[in-house]
Amino acid sequence: MGWGYVEDAIDKSTLQPILDVMAPVLGGAPQPARPGPSAADVTLATPAVDPPQALAAFVSTDHDQRLLRAVGRSFRDLATLRAGTPLAAPAAVATPRNPQELEDTLAWASDAGLAAIPFGGGSSVVGGVNPEDMGDWPGAVTIDLQRMNQVFGINERDRVVHAEAGILGPALENALAGTGLAVRHYPQSYFHSTLGGWVATRGAGHFSTLRAKIEDRVQSLSVMLPDGSTSTTRPLPASSIGPDPNRLWAGSEGALGVITDVRLRLVADPAHKLSASIGFRDFETALEATRAIAQAEIWPAQMRVLDPFEHMVSTALAGGAGEGALMILGFEGEYDVSRQRDAAVEIARAHGGTPRTSGDSGAGDWREAFFRQPYLRDALLDHAVIVDTFETAVPWSAVPAFYHSVLEATGEALDEVCGHGGVACRVTHAYTDGVALYFSFYAPGEHDALLTQWHALKAAVSEAVVAGGGTMSHHHAMGRDHKTWARTEIPDAFRSAIRGAKSALDPTGMLNPGLWFAD
Amino acid sequence: MGWGYVEDAIDKSTLQPILDVMAPVLGGAPQPARPGPSAADVTLATPAVDPPQALAAFVSTDHDQRLLRAVGRSFRDLATLRAGTPLAAPAAVATPRNPQELEDTLAWASDAGLAAIPFGGGSSVVGGVNPEDMGDWPGAVTIDLQRMNQVFGINERDRVVHAEAGILGPALENALAGTGLAVRHYPQSYFHSTLGGWVATRGAGHFSTLRAKIEDRVQSLSVMLPDGSTSTTRPLPASSIGPDPNRLWAGSEGALGVITDVRLRLVADPAHKLSASIGFRDFETALEATRAIAQAEIWPAQMRVLDPFEHMVSTALAGGAGEGALMILGFEGEYDVSRQRDAAVEIARAHGGTPRTSGDSGAGDWREAFFRQPYLRDALLDHAVIVDTFETAVPWSAVPAFYHSVLEATGEALDEVCGHGGVACRVTHAYTDGVALYFSFYAPGEHDALLTQWHALKAAVSEAVVAGGGTMSHHHAMGRDHKTWARTEIPDAFRSAIRGAKSALDPTGMLNPGLWFAD
Repeated sequence: MGWGYVEDAIDKSTLQPILDVMAPVLGGAPQPARPGPSAADVTLATPAVDPPQALAAFVSTDHDQRLLRAVGRSFRDLATLRAGTPLAAPAAVATPRNPQELEDTLAWASDAGLAAIPFGGGSSVVGGVNPEDMGDWPGAVTIDLQRMNQVFGINERDRVVHAEAGILGPALENALAGTGLAVRHYPQSYFHSTLGGWVATRGAGHFSTLRAKIEDRVQSLSVMLPDGSTSTTRPLPASSIGPDPNRLWAGSEGALGVITDVRLRLVADPAHKLSASIGFRDFETALEATRAIAQAEIWPAQMRVLDPFEHMVSTALAGGAGEGALMILGFEGEYDVSRQRDAAVEIARAHGGTPRTSGDSGAGDWREAFFRQPYLRDALLDHAVIVDTFETAVPWSAVPAFYHSVLEATGEALDEVCGHGGVACRVTHAYTDGVALYFSFYAPGEHDALLTQWHALKAAVSEAVVAGGGTMSHHHAMGRDHKTWARTEIPDAFRSAIRGAKSALDPTGMLNPGLWFAD
Repeated sequence: MGWGYVEDAIDKSTLQPILDVMAPVLGGAPQPARPGPSAADVTLATPAVDPPQALAAFVSTDHDQRLLRAVGRSFRDLATLRAGTPLAAPAAVATPRNPQELEDTLAWASDAGLAAIPFGGGSSVVGGVNPEDMGDWPGAVTIDLQRMNQVFGINERDRVVHAEAGILGPALENALAGTGLAVRHYPQSYFHSTLGGWVATRGAGHFSTLRAKIEDRVQSLSVMLPDGSTSTTRPLPASSIGPDPNRLWAGSEGALGVITDVRLRLVADPAHKLSASIGFRDFETALEATRAIAQAEIWPAQMRVLDPFEHMVSTALAGGAGEGALMILGFEGEYDVSRQRDAAVEIARAHGGTPRTSGDSGAGDWREAFFRQPYLRDALLDHAVIVDTFETAVPWSAVPAFYHSVLEATGEALDEVCGHGGVACRVTHAYTDGVALYFSFYAPGEHDALLTQWHALKAAVSEAVVAGGGTMSHHHAMGRDHKTWARTEIPDAFRSAIRGAKSALDPTGMLNPGLWFAD
């Protein structure tokens, strides 16, 4: 079990050169390959329940069905599967095809005294859907919404698509074919995540500026509460009637109601695309240029900035030898974007950057590599190589001290826990007041200690993020994995408010228990 | 008593030409002037309370102090003052100078069984601060925050200012002098509204796109709860740890805690400004051009679009005779904005517009006239002329049917209630998925029936707005005046959630009772 589609997995001949490149970081060859368990090998800790006959068409207690929804796709999830200990799993899996079946599922779970965990594409990397930390709940029905995937309508005048929450990224994009409109929200999980999941986690896509976060693109949404009642926010471009209801459910991770459908703001299919890459002698200089571009209101569609190690790793994999930091800019729009590109390049140059190439190529390769990274992680994991990432956002004024302190803390933890390791960083999204940083680390793990090693590393990096004033997540949500450290960034009054809201919406606390909402 | 500063009031020689221009709309000369009451003439319905001696330095029960905080500046407020009936007023007025005095005020109000109404600049036009509809509360302490007006810091790297909630618009802007940074948030109430008030009401400023709403510019805020505890949201450019806490208090109208300070995102002092005005044969055509510009990602700083009647009125007051609809575009930025201006003008032209002038003049005059409009309303009210406005936002697909239905309903109501009248509309803010429309109406009222007439008109226009799918307010908040109709746009689940949050934050419900939050 791993990421995505079996036929897309990385084969041995592709892997060896990667291992060769990584050898210096890993302190030599990694452990011999030990494949992950097959589905049948995994024992489920939680007993299944007997669903009523009336729900048989969309509720299953099949082993594989339960296993498939027992975890997300975090490193912890994969290491847990390999550890061989019995796995916390849903007591049953519901795949409702419409709101009535969803209502029936919730009513049954409620009657049976079971928790309910809304589930989108299952690509959570933060323990968002694992039936763990559930207090007194004896088990959970995981509600996979992927069969609620209708497109209700495309409003071309408003540039809004109205679709059910369970639709996957590509299906939503395909539904727009021929309209001249597009979603263009490409998280790394694009092929395996849903519209509702994006909103419930406040995810980010490939837009580095302006439309980075999905919550800024939600015009309206509907939720179903445990009692089966539904509510829809009024589709409006903006309002000042009380707090914004859409913003209560954006980031609610299934704990404040099941998001059933969303009206999402679209963009024009870009008629114009341009890119540029710019070299910098170091990351600090590149960050200053990034800040200047972000604050200049040029709004590049993409602005990825690789630190020297990230740059070295990514070019080494392609047989090259990148030095220094690299900024990759992408511009796209309904109208000519050359002036934007030129302005950004000019600012970068004024901040010490050296333009490398210019044109409209390159973005496609990068995009494909980006979507393939999780497959690589699986292949490396066979060799007990720990590959994990964490992402955060901080104000500009905290950078670069934040970058250095997190790098140092991560490096020290890797040395201590694994004896070797490397840590890389890139800018993924930028704002006028700060930046999102995405860290990746690699270390030689041990097959029989992966989970322990990961927990030690996760604690060390999370403490460094919190100490530096970063958020525990810019776009992956909180889940169970971030709960401990996320506490420090949730103001007391907000915790009280959300608990109050949760009590009103979900009086028994049955929805996705285990998040901070109910602590 | 009226809007703003006495020395800025409109004198007779300025008023007469305006009355002459309006005569056709008003069906002739309006009623003879009857000046509004002086402060001493107004009777307060609510008895004062005796504050403890310890609070004497910042709590007053002086008649004028209480009268000044008894109302906002809506037409209803001014008509109520003129009606001569005893006025609901605060039982006392607190003007705390720091968080300790604010805490002491809340503790005293709580002990004394009084409600507490947070008060910024007092420019509410929706009944946001009136001590009315308070259920069982015998009286309220109005907490005017204008003495909590410190600027704590300006972070030039992050482009963020951190200031206390009670600071007025101009003071906040002045604090930034010399930094190269600016707020550039100019609501019509700019001189008489506070940073905290902007956030509590989800106000909008002069930016027509991208930075229209203040809530998009809040990096962090602090609130004090009735128990004196304070919470500060972490200053972050973005996050995905749960729902966004800043968005709970944006639009909370003082009912979920007292906003004590805000970190607000700034812009560069614009080094470049350009404007353009474009004529259209009718409003419908102009709206199509507005939509095209909003969806083209050009982001004009200002895009005001006047319908023919609004255009006629505004030019008539300057001695001209404008025909058709008029689009006024403004561009500003740190870098050259000529390409943006040219692109927008080109789109407008392609949609049937005729560029009228071009250059960087005109915006200043329009701005001054804009800030003077409330003074004009006062002068007209002396003649019992009803001048009121209402604003809303709707998806593009609802326009122009919405425009016509609201115009028709308003016109019919004016004829029925006043015998004559005119209604004008302008676009104030535009989004990719919709537009904010601002309606103004004028009618010959009667000195002794102003309030009754206004209530009939307000009901008619509000019903039309709701029926058309608009929000009851795009940027003036809900207050008490919009509560009845706003109910229809608040989803049940959100009402429950906010009530739950309110119970947790404000268990006795003492904060600004009378809004929908506690209904």
